[in-house]
Amino acid sequence: MISVGIVGGTGYTGVELLRLLANHPQVDVKVITSRSNDGVRVDEMFPNLRGHYDLAFTVPDGKSLESCDVVFFATPNGTAMTLVPDLLDAGVKIIDLAADFRLKDEAQWEKWYGMPHACADLLQEAVYGLPELNREVIRDARLVANPGCYPTAVTLGLMPLIESGQVDLSSIVADCKSGVSGAGRGANVATLMGECGESFKAYAVSGHRHLPEIRQNLETIAGEPVGLTFVPHLLPMIRGIHATLYLKTERHSDWQSMYESRYAEEFFVDVLPAGSHPETRTVKAINHNRIAIHQPQEGDTLVVLSVIDNLVKGAAGQAIQNMNLMFDLHESAGLNTVALLP
Amino acid sequence: MISVGIVGGTGYTGVELLRLLANHPQVDVKVITSRSNDGVRVDEMFPNLRGHYDLAFTVPDGKSLESCDVVFFATPNGTAMTLVPDLLDAGVKIIDLAADFRLKDEAQWEKWYGMPHACADLLQEAVYGLPELNREVIRDARLVANPGCYPTAVTLGLMPLIESGQVDLSSIVADCKSGVSGAGRGANVATLMGECGESFKAYAVSGHRHLPEIRQNLETIAGEPVGLTFVPHLLPMIRGIHATLYLKTERHSDWQSMYESRYAEEFFVDVLPAGSHPETRTVKAINHNRIAIHQPQEGDTLVVLSVIDNLVKGAAGQAIQNMNLMFDLHESAGLNTVALLP
Amino acid sequence: MISVGIVGGTGYTGVELLRLLANHPQVDVKVITSRSNDGVRVDEMFPNLRGHYDLAFTVPDGKSLESCDVVFFATPNGTAMTLVPDLLDAGVKIIDLAADFRLKDEAQWEKWYGMPHACADLLQEAVYGLPELNREVIRDARLVANPGCYPTAVTLGLMPLIESGQVDLSSIVADCKSGVSGAGRGANVATLMGECGESFKAYAVSGHRHLPEIRQNLETIAGEPVGLTFVPHLLPMIRGIHATLYLKTERHSDWQSMYESRYAEEFFVDVLPAGSHPETRTVKAINHNRIAIHQPQEGDTLVVLSVIDNLVKGAAGQAIQNMNLMFDLHESAGLNTVALLP
Amino acid sequence: MISVGIVGGTGYTGVELLRLLANHPQVDVKVITSRSNDGVRVDEMFPNLRGHYDLAFTVPDGKSLESCDVVFFATPNGTAMTLVPDLLDAGVKIIDLAADFRLKDEAQWEKWYGMPHACADLLQEAVYGLPELNREVIRDARLVANPGCYPTAVTLGLMPLIESGQVDLSSIVADCKSGVSGAGRGANVATLMGECGESFKAYAVSGHRHLPEIRQNLETIAGEPVGLTFVPHLLPMIRGIHATLYLKTERHSDWQSMYESRYAEEFFVDVLPAGSHPETRTVKAINHNRIAIHQPQEGDTLVVLSVIDNLVKGAAGQAIQNMNLMFDLHESAGLNTVALLP
Repeated sequence: MISVGIVGGTGYTGVELLRLLANHPQVDVKVITSRSNDGVRVDEMFPNLRGHYDLAFTVPDGKSLESCDVVFFATPNGTAMTLVPDLLDAGVKIIDLAADFRLKDEAQWEKWYGMPHACADLLQEAVYGLPELNREVIRDARLVANPGCYPTAVTLGLMPLIESGQVDLSSIVADCKSGVSGAGRGANVATLMGECGESFKAYAVSGHRHLPEIRQNLETIAGEPVGLTFVPHLLPMIRGIHATLYLKTERHSDWQSMYESRYAEEFFVDVLPAGSHPETRTVKAINHNRIAIHQPQEGDTLVVLSVIDNLVKGAAGQAIQNMNLMFDLHESAGLNTVALLP
Repeated sequence: MISVGIVGGTGYTGVELLRLLANHPQVDVKVITSRSNDGVRVDEMFPNLRGHYDLAFTVPDGKSLESCDVVFFATPNGTAMTLVPDLLDAGVKIIDLAADFRLKDEAQWEKWYGMPHACADLLQEAVYGLPELNREVIRDARLVANPGCYPTAVTLGLMPLIESGQVDLSSIVADCKSGVSGAGRGANVATLMGECGESFKAYAVSGHRHLPEIRQNLETIAGEPVGLTFVPHLLPMIRGIHATLYLKTERHSDWQSMYESRYAEEFFVDVLPAGSHPETRTVKAINHNRIAIHQPQEGDTLVVLSVIDNLVKGAAGQAIQNMNLMFDLHESAGLNTVALLP
Repeated sequence: MISVGIVGGTGYTGVELLRLLANHPQVDVKVITSRSNDGVRVDEMFPNLRGHYDLAFTVPDGKSLESCDVVFFATPNGTAMTLVPDLLDAGVKIIDLAADFRLKDEAQWEKWYGMPHACADLLQEAVYGLPELNREVIRDARLVANPGCYPTAVTLGLMPLIESGQVDLSSIVADCKSGVSGAGRGANVATLMGECGESFKAYAVSGHRHLPEIRQNLETIAGEPVGLTFVPHLLPMIRGIHATLYLKTERHSDWQSMYESRYAEEFFVDVLPAGSHPETRTVKAINHNRIAIHQPQEGDTLVVLSVIDNLVKGAAGQAIQNMNLMFDLHESAGLNTVALLP
Repeated sequence: MISVGIVGGTGYTGVELLRLLANHPQVDVKVITSRSNDGVRVDEMFPNLRGHYDLAFTVPDGKSLESCDVVFFATPNGTAMTLVPDLLDAGVKIIDLAADFRLKDEAQWEKWYGMPHACADLLQEAVYGLPELNREVIRDARLVANPGCYPTAVTLGLMPLIESGQVDLSSIVADCKSGVSGAGRGANVATLMGECGESFKAYAVSGHRHLPEIRQNLETIAGEPVGLTFVPHLLPMIRGIHATLYLKTERHSDWQSMYESRYAEEFFVDVLPAGSHPETRTVKAINHNRIAIHQPQEGDTLVVLSVIDNLVKGAAGQAIQNMNLMFDLHESAGLNTVALLP
């Protein structure tokens, strides 16, 4: 059994890790920390876990974390980077669900996250944990930067087209919509049901932190600069991300076959039949990404529709997929479940 | 492997059976019928099932159903009773998720369901499939009448008190609230999101079909007549039932301990700590019932709060729990999962 | 024109007052205060008000408030009582939308609100602002305690029956459900959409502050003690309260006619036809209360269904109705609008 | 008083017309038709109208409709065209809320609506009822084609840029999201709350009927062909449309001032301050369009955000705005209300 520690377990990413790990056959969660909830049982805070965990939150403490095989960070940005170096030295593997190690460029990171980086030397070593892009390096990684939710949906949606070289890379549009759980469990007027229920809006149009992350992914795949406009929106629902992606092309290829081939071996990427419109609910609670590709009216604009559950493939599920790779388990261990519909 | 047939698989109960059975280690779904969707793949109608079933709907047909070990009916009321006698004769076990076999009294059944009963002789043999009440007879049953959703939440909520003989049986109030999935997947103006979203109402106050079913349960437990007022309401959400139950008593017993004792051995009934308020989301997607009991202001009225997922413990999950008992499997096989929160 | 001041305008009650007063023909809002938003334009905080107000929040200040004809308090409990005496001395009329003046008994108030009362001598003078109960005294009042949302829905729903003397007063049950706007606009984990969306729960079963308020109303009407069990619940929607009320009786009167007669002259109380089930959406955004009365199965339990919009008849609308009475305007001035459906 | 007839009053557009006309000071609704609900009172079907109308549905009948000054068609596509010629001959003015007269090109209309047009000769006379584009011709029109909901949001959002000649017209993207009321009140599995609640999807990516309508508008404004990709999505909420519009440009103009100038005299178009993100709830129940324009990261892509209430500015409200123009009333008569927030 792999012994697991979770730092910062009181948010939605934390409880989702606990939900998914409860059904993982080769894992034992030994430590879960929360500075402000020391001593509180996890199933008291999250009663959906009753019967599955006999565990209480503790104050983060190097010794107990160092006894784990792997530590997940489900903390706000800027926390993991202060604890990771010592844990790595102690031989613990790290999966950071926050953004501390997602960008390769230190200056970019500091610009977008507004603070100095505490261990910038690890930015190069850290592996960006998108298995469909980096599977082999993830297997050997000590430190995995788990991707953001929007970057996961967008990158998987665009990867085959970018790789194909058949699209205009200068003006990609990613119009993305997320359920409110993506904004976390912090007390915040903007995510009250009275504020975001029965309403819809864009936000951060001038620049969102996932913009440089997505651009880094696309440029890694393309090997050249990419022009990207990324607009996130807030949906009046809890779970799910839908990315609607627009690209220019002069071709009329068989895009459907290209997508099906590219992802034929991918357990968690499902290319829907031609003409489909994926619904976010078809991935609710599971680690899958479902994709459809259209060329409307036979025109010069391609439209890709890509959906994930932001808390699963967009966070905790992908983190477990990465763990499975790092510990040489079956990649889908604990993750082969059916989406909740309705 | 137990071979399973499902009659009427295009509603919410049908797709929920498929979702849950996909994770059941000892089951193989061989037949699923739908007269109007003959030939359509189940994962085309319900894309959440992609990757889990290689199965298409077929027209109901005695021969293929007779080859199954057990057949679930997820049909409208009045359908199962026309097919069950032949299937029983062929040695197939039956679990009816509709109401055809729930009432013992033929006249009552015909009054509430507005049609003659096609095989009233089976009403006595049919076992009411609430395991917490009838576990041992279910094990040996050929024909199980799977309980209604409201009756499950109410009966489990009241059972310990009724058994105790410490409450006034003449004036019990069951104020119940259900998510809209309880109304099914039929095209219906009343359950359009434009009609029932962002609104709340009672319905069928003058008399709902679950009233005689709940009363039959309570009177079976009490061994005497029971006065019950049952008012169902429609919640602007998809899954979940919350029953708020009011009973008069002259006692000040340790109700908490009584409930904990009564359900100590029940895997799927969870008595919450004193003072709790169960949320429906803590049972979303799982087969558990969570209960809390209060005696507000030390007065003479007891308040019991009982929540289930109407599609799981209130339908498909309980049906599988019954199947597990009928086939001598572990009672929680395929059902020991964690509720989705948030 | 009546000049109006609003103390504490940044919550849902405040913005609803502004919405309704914008359409009131005889009112001019001159001052709106918020200590923490001094200088912020109201239409910057609430863009739905763009084009209707050229006003910014100011720090509360005796002088500007004293220049108003009437001041509404849309503040947390315990604020109004510190400012009201001076304003009354200055000749300003007061309508308090919080609870500071709702209970007549000082000890009860201090028990339920957990603080000493700053001007308990005013508790007797304050008029409980339910026009259907206290219309004539409201006309002459200097200080009106605007009722709570639950107490409004419950009291209007029960008034004719209590007055009739034909029901058992010892065991009334009020099972009430409220949209989340009733919990206010404060940053609070419990009312995040991720917490209360797609879920339902009871709360404060052991005792809610509206219990003594409702009981005081019913006992005032009855002239004798009343036994009441009150259980509030949180609905996954924004606006609306539904009270389901249960009373015992030995009679079979024509309750429908009794209700219609009692409310025949009331503009804002609408008794629905026999057999109806009021939906909360039929009062969305308006000051009406819609009621239906049932005697299910000809039994000994009466069921009354009573709906209001918690922010209108349950708060801001009723406050304006009171203002209209206090200033001898038409009682429905500014309030005769149509509910939003769908 | 203008006497009004409404053909087809049982859908969401019909009840919204009734809601808005109830508050219009110069209008008297005399006839409302519904073939299948002959004799049913409108306030029985829509209880939010209780107290506002003493009117029942009747079977459509030339004589009663011909006695009206204006007739609104709130019918499915293809109905108005069969009745309009006779009504025009009788001197009645017509506002069609369906699509029968929106496209100028008969062949296009027949291609997209899949039926022959019954009075194609009127397509040229019909005035496209977007007052911000066609105000003066609307004043004199006999027959107004009320715009579609998406076309209203998109056209108003793009008009100043198209007029400016400073954007690339060859590749405009309109990523649009609508609440479910846009899909109407017909019984339909796809718009059940169990289907579209808590989920999000695109639809009709290959081609939606509003595509040629939007393109016709943009080409009318531009005076040249326009390349448009239009993708509609279904939001899990009832009211509201959000259009996110992407255009390429090589300029860095003061777009904010351009928008503010263009719409300075428009009562119903509100250009928000620079950097804003309009929420659909800020136009809930009102006839306003709120717009923001961004040039993210100083790049070559402009992003315009445009919101309306699909049932008001996208249907019934705009129809009344057109009526006001046609009858020389104040353009905002009956429409100057405040959006419902929260």
